[in-house]
Order: sequence, then structure tokens, then C-alpha cells
Amino acid sequence: MTYTLVLLRHGESEWNAKNLFTGWVDVALSEKGVAEAKRGGTLLTDAGVLPDVVHTSLLRRAIMTSNYALDAADRLWIPVKRSWRLNERHYGDLQGKDKKQTLEQYGEEQFMLWRRSYDVPPPEIELGSEFSQDSDPRYAGEPIPRAEALAQVLDRALPYWHSDIVPDLQAGKTTLVAAHGNSIRAIVKYLDDVDDATIAGINIPTGIPLVYHLDEETLKPTNPGGTYLDPSAAEAAIAAVANQGR
Amino acid sequence: MTYTLVLLRHGESEWNAKNLFTGWVDVALSEKGVAEAKRGGTLLTDAGVLPDVVHTSLLRRAIMTSNYALDAADRLWIPVKRSWRLNERHYGDLQGKDKKQTLEQYGEEQFMLWRRSYDVPPPEIELGSEFSQDSDPRYAGEPIPRAEALAQVLDRALPYWHSDIVPDLQAGKTTLVAAHGNSIRAIVKYLDDVDDATIAGINIPTGIPLVYHLDEETLKPTNPGGTYLDPSAAEAAIAAVANQGR
Repeated sequence: MTYTLVLLRHGESEWNAKNLFTGWVDVALSEKGVAEAKRGGTLLTDAGVLPDVVHTSLLRRAIMTSNYALDAADRLWIPVKRSWRLNERHYGDLQGKDKKQTLEQYGEEQFMLWRRSYDVPPPEIELGSEFSQDSDPRYAGEPIPRAEALAQVLDRALPYWHSDIVPDLQAGKTTLVAAHGNSIRAIVKYLDDVDDATIAGINIPTGIPLVYHLDEETLKPTNPGGTYLDPSAAEAAIAAVANQGR
Repeated sequence: MTYTLVLLRHGESEWNAKNLFTGWVDVALSEKGVAEAKRGGTLLTDAGVLPDVVHTSLLRRAIMTSNYALDAADRLWIPVKRSWRLNERHYGDLQGKDKKQTLEQYGEEQFMLWRRSYDVPPPEIELGSEFSQDSDPRYAGEPIPRAEALAQVLDRALPYWHSDIVPDLQAGKTTLVAAHGNSIRAIVKYLDDVDDATIAGINIPTGIPLVYHLDEETLKPTNPGGTYLDPSAAEAAIAAVANQGR
């Protein structure tokens, strides 16, 4: 027997569309992002993959993606859990900055290091600055970061994986995780035992459910890499993500 | 010290707009209903009443109302709990029927008895019929009704009030309940000790937050009847609800 996990990256946000580093800045979905989220729900319905429980980050682009997708799949009524541990990578001082401009300013090497190195975080964000979250009530009392590389995302996502997601899976629930490019990459790295270099080349497309079947004993995938519900759309979208900032 | 409870009836649904008995049929918000829900969130923001937790029914019109309202209030990230015990009154065999037609067919007396008597339920719905919920997965294993008067709504809502809502209030959380005309009337009847005859004349407007301050010892309102965040709009809407089916 296997357990079913569904990873869903939020649809395009207003800042994806503007090509800005977003991180923990709480921007809304674009119109295209809303359509992507609804289509994600239709893909779930068509595949007969019906979530019994949903986990989201604390950011509205992931929350609204789950809302639109679950509405389209007629599963709005399922239990919901939310955690900052599923948030996007904290982009530190880069939050709010233009990706293309950052590339030009710092050069290809530094840019790709910040974007894709496994454990080199960008510069820390200044407390109290415009795009900082230090006084945001949703994080009150939580040990939130000021900048993260993917390694730190995995470090803070994994405790939630074990404490909240695994118990739902082990209860036999089809478990949807509506989150972000990098929090999903962290989970994928963990599940598929991807090494630190290879994960740099793995991109997650927006709005296309990625289904994992996990062995009930080991909780490791019986379908390594997972299965996108729309493989050809996923392939095209992955190529587009890889070219961001160009 | 007092605790803060906010009751919010969902915005207009597609069937409110068509004047059909809805009950547990899971219809969507109308465009007007979406606008009402967003305005409800703006009223919360303007009043500085910021929910720390939200409870909803299992019906999409209440869930989407809470989503739109919380989005407008920048509180989408708060914890969510859902229960069928907050659902609308089950309208039995009347579900799906036209209100005006039902009034003409059965006459004013019977119509008002079904709509407003405290403890006379409408005829039970037939299992397996078009608007029945007996095979709906969201209610699997739950002791769901086949028809309810307000008395039965109170009977099944009260256990949830005590088990789930009261603990949140006692933790000092501003608690939002996004629900339905009759599940909210049941809670109001309980909180304000309204007698069985008087509750018939109490209507709840859609989309206007009703705020109760509850004494920390007795959990009874220090503002009996509650306070609408837009009193003049509430008054006009209450009059409109009372005239439904005319």
C-alpha cells in the first residue's frame, strides 16, 4: 500500500509577473495565477486525486491557490492546516528587488549563487525595512529567518513534515501541500534524496499538481520524482522557470 | 475582561438570488455575494476587529465568504476549523424548491411554520434524491439530519460551540464564525437567551459582521443582541430578509 501526497506550487503572483524577488512578501495572485489555481483543481478532479486534508504556508498566494483549486475540485470543506514552515524561501535583502536588475548589478555568478546554490543565503534583510516581516503578527513568537538558502528552508520545513504532514499521510489521507517553488523543492530533495548539486537544476512549475505515491513503511516515493498531472504542460513550465531573470 | 466573537452570515448565494430553499445544497456565492463578503472584511479592518481564528460550516458559500472577508482583512493566514455543525438548517424535502411557489402551494400558515416555527421541521428529504446529502463524502460517518427546524440546528451546533469555539474564546482569540442564517440565529438564541417565539422575528443580514463581547466568567454578552459593524446597512438588510418569499 502507498500513501498519496500532492504538491502544488501557487499560481503566478503579481510579483512573479513583474519579475521581482518575492520571498516572504505577501503579494496576491495575478489573474493568470487565479486561472492556474483553478486549472490545478480541475486536473485533480480529472485524475480522481481528491485531497482529504490541505496544508498551506501563511502566504496568501499559496492559500488562495489552495482555495481556488479545492473549489474547482469540490473539496473546499476538507480540514486545513497552515504553517510558516511551508513559506517560500526568505530572500533576505533581495526581497522587492528586480531579478533582471539584480543579475546585471551583481553578475551571473553571484546571481546564480543566490538563486540556486544549496546553502549560500542572500544578504540578511534589515529589521524594520519595507519588505521585512519582523513585526508581522502572523509570525509573532516564531523563530523566523532574515534570509535563507534552500538548506535553511529544508531545515525549517522538515520538522513540520514530521509533526503534521506525516501523521495525515499515515492516517491514509490524500494530503495536499499548497506552497512555493522553494519549499516544494526542499520537500522534493528530501523525498527523492536529491544531492545538493542536482537540486539546483530542479524547477517546480506553477499550478500543476505533482503527485507522489509513498511507500507505507519507508515513506519514500514508489514513483521517484513524482508524477505531474499534466506532464507536457509541466515540461514547458519548468523550462520557463529556469529562464527567469534572462 | 471580555472575549470577542464575530458572527458573519455568508453573502448572497446563487440560490438566494433565485429565491430557492437551499439548506445543505452546496451552491456558490453570486457575484453580489462575493462583493458582500469582501465588504465584510473591509468592515472588520475598519473597526480594528481582526480575527485570530475562523470557524466555518462545510458549505462553500460560508467557506468562500470567510476566504474573501479574511483576504480583505489581511488575515487569510489564521487557523481554520470547519464543521457540519455550523451548516445551514437542513430544509428537508423543501431543498431545491422555489420559495414563492412553495408559499402559493402550501399557503401562508404552513409556509411560515416551516420557515419560522422554532421546532416544526419541514418534511424529511428522501435518501438518494437529487438534493439529498446522504452519499456526500464530507458527511461520511456523521449523524446528519434529513430535515431540521431551528431547535435541531441549536441541538447540533451547541456541542461544537462548547468543544471548539469556547476554547478559542477562552484563549483570548478574536473568533470569527462564518456560517448561515439559521446556524447564526441558533447561536444568537443561545447567547441572548431569546425565547422560542421571539427568535422567529430575528433575521440576520448577509455579509455584515455581528460582534459580541462575551463576559469572561459567564460567556454571556455584555452587549446583548450584539453590535453590527454597519448598523444602518444591517437594518435595511434585515427588513429585506423578513420579506423573502413575498
